[in-house]
Amino acid sequence: MAVYTEIGDDELRAFIALYDLGEVLACKGIAEGVENSNYLLTTGCGNFILTLYEKRVARGDLPFFIALMDHLARQGVACPVPVRARDGEALRELCGRPAAIVTFLNGMWPRRIDPYHCAGLGEALARLHRAGESFDMARPNDLGLAGWRRLYEGCGARAGDVQPGLADELAEELAFLENAWPRDLPCGVIHADLFPDNVFFRDHELSGLIDFYFACTDFLAYDIAICLNAWCFEPDLSFNVTKARLLVSRYRAVRPLAAAELAALPLLARGSALRFLLTRLYDWLNQTAGALVRPKDPLEYVRKLRFHRGLAGPEAYGIDP
Amino acid sequence: MAVYTEIGDDELRAFIALYDLGEVLACKGIAEGVENSNYLLTTGCGNFILTLYEKRVARGDLPFFIALMDHLARQGVACPVPVRARDGEALRELCGRPAAIVTFLNGMWPRRIDPYHCAGLGEALARLHRAGESFDMARPNDLGLAGWRRLYEGCGARAGDVQPGLADELAEELAFLENAWPRDLPCGVIHADLFPDNVFFRDHELSGLIDFYFACTDFLAYDIAICLNAWCFEPDLSFNVTKARLLVSRYRAVRPLAAAELAALPLLARGSALRFLLTRLYDWLNQTAGALVRPKDPLEYVRKLRFHRGLAGPEAYGIDP
Repeated sequence: MAVYTEIGDDELRAFIALYDLGEVLACKGIAEGVENSNYLLTTGCGNFILTLYEKRVARGDLPFFIALMDHLARQGVACPVPVRARDGEALRELCGRPAAIVTFLNGMWPRRIDPYHCAGLGEALARLHRAGESFDMARPNDLGLAGWRRLYEGCGARAGDVQPGLADELAEELAFLENAWPRDLPCGVIHADLFPDNVFFRDHELSGLIDFYFACTDFLAYDIAICLNAWCFEPDLSFNVTKARLLVSRYRAVRPLAAAELAALPLLARGSALRFLLTRLYDWLNQTAGALVRPKDPLEYVRKLRFHRGLAGPEAYGIDP
Repeated sequence: MAVYTEIGDDELRAFIALYDLGEVLACKGIAEGVENSNYLLTTGCGNFILTLYEKRVARGDLPFFIALMDHLARQGVACPVPVRARDGEALRELCGRPAAIVTFLNGMWPRRIDPYHCAGLGEALARLHRAGESFDMARPNDLGLAGWRRLYEGCGARAGDVQPGLADELAEELAFLENAWPRDLPCGVIHADLFPDNVFFRDHELSGLIDFYFACTDFLAYDIAICLNAWCFEPDLSFNVTKARLLVSRYRAVRPLAAAELAALPLLARGSALRFLLTRLYDWLNQTAGALVRPKDPLEYVRKLRFHRGLAGPEAYGIDP
């Protein structure tokens, strides 16, 4: 939970006066979200989300994120739409931070994942990838292969503090992935962080995707691999092939997967597991007293990584090759 | 900031189905508030606040708080109104905790206090006290005189860790107050925690009072003393007599103060300062790693206490006797 910046009421009123949103009726910091400060803003025009971008989001990347949400919404993807002030700008400054208002999406993120969630997710992910085909901006994936090496060098040596032998295991995995990582899979805009708390449902229907602040240009199938990790393991970390099969088959019904993409899934899933393992490990080893966010356990992703490492091929996910 | 209990989406839907509120559209934990978990709940009927009562609120007190908000709202006080489920009950259970839905109040609490805020506050406080006259329930003040002694015994000996000499100063102050505390001032329902974050304004008008979970039966003038401490000191802890004068004069225009109440104000303000000093000291000395709430500095109230101790009479607050 996180609200890093407190907004003064006078400052907020002056800010909202730049928009055609009517009077500010309320503005409450939201406990969800880790990277930025988010507020539920109620005005005469309804509910909105006001985001203040904190230090971990690079200012130079913000125009990409804003343009992406705009583009996806125009393509029919249910996602937050940046609201422009009267001068046409969606990206402004508030309390010394970059700030934007986006539309409020109805729906709740699922706490307990049922197979129908994975089905809806697969379809929405494929629609997102297809909608991204006509988006003309690009952003390299900071947390891709080269980023893992940097993260490993920043914290890998201390991995043994979390689990004995983990430092060596990570070094071997990283070396393996650097050697084996695919080079020519279909690329495009990926969400790159499509965990359950970023996917809203109303009743059994997916109602929207949020939090595009890790979006970047990378292998489209890597986004599927992230979802396999984030959605298809049970709380006891057993892998649910029914969920994986639904996720991938509903994806393929909207965007067919090439044979090379399917074949690469176990490798991409290992890479994705390593990515979340390393960022969690980094945050775990660099906890600060008084932090507002509890770091997530890196060991969950150690176990996921090992699962993928043991697989013969994509059939092990329950996927029809 | 605090959301101690996470509510599952399925659990929430089942809970809301007991009310005539339509479909749950969203439910987001709010970062404000210290004692309980608060969620901004959006349904087909609009915005509401869902509160899960955490351990520091005694279950046995909840019917008092719910009935009080009901009563005050019926008397025209702008405060959250408990929403009753179809069976007529406002107080239920969710995630193993007592839970209630109340109406959403528009407005924002003031971060920088201007004199007009204190004027609005004085009038609203007097209206609250008058509306409470016809409320027939009572609740003793746990954090009154007897409570200070208990708090002091729990943490006073370690006060020197915060400031040298503070333990003795607190012991003397407590002994003095136990001896001098008034016995027969007008009593009634008081809010007992009317800090700026519990008072909402729209533009220059007070739009509502929230957070009645310290409300109790005590001297009405003690509530004024709490507000003098919470609203009339500047950030540098100098006392602003203009604000105090506005607060008290607007109060008196709605509910006249007896001579004994006016004369007791410096003493009541000392008691109120000691109350917040002791609870802050307790929280400061009992910080736990990973806590979601940063404790407030007790020394602010040491300085406020000393200010009141040095006064000859209520005239020093800028008040017309």
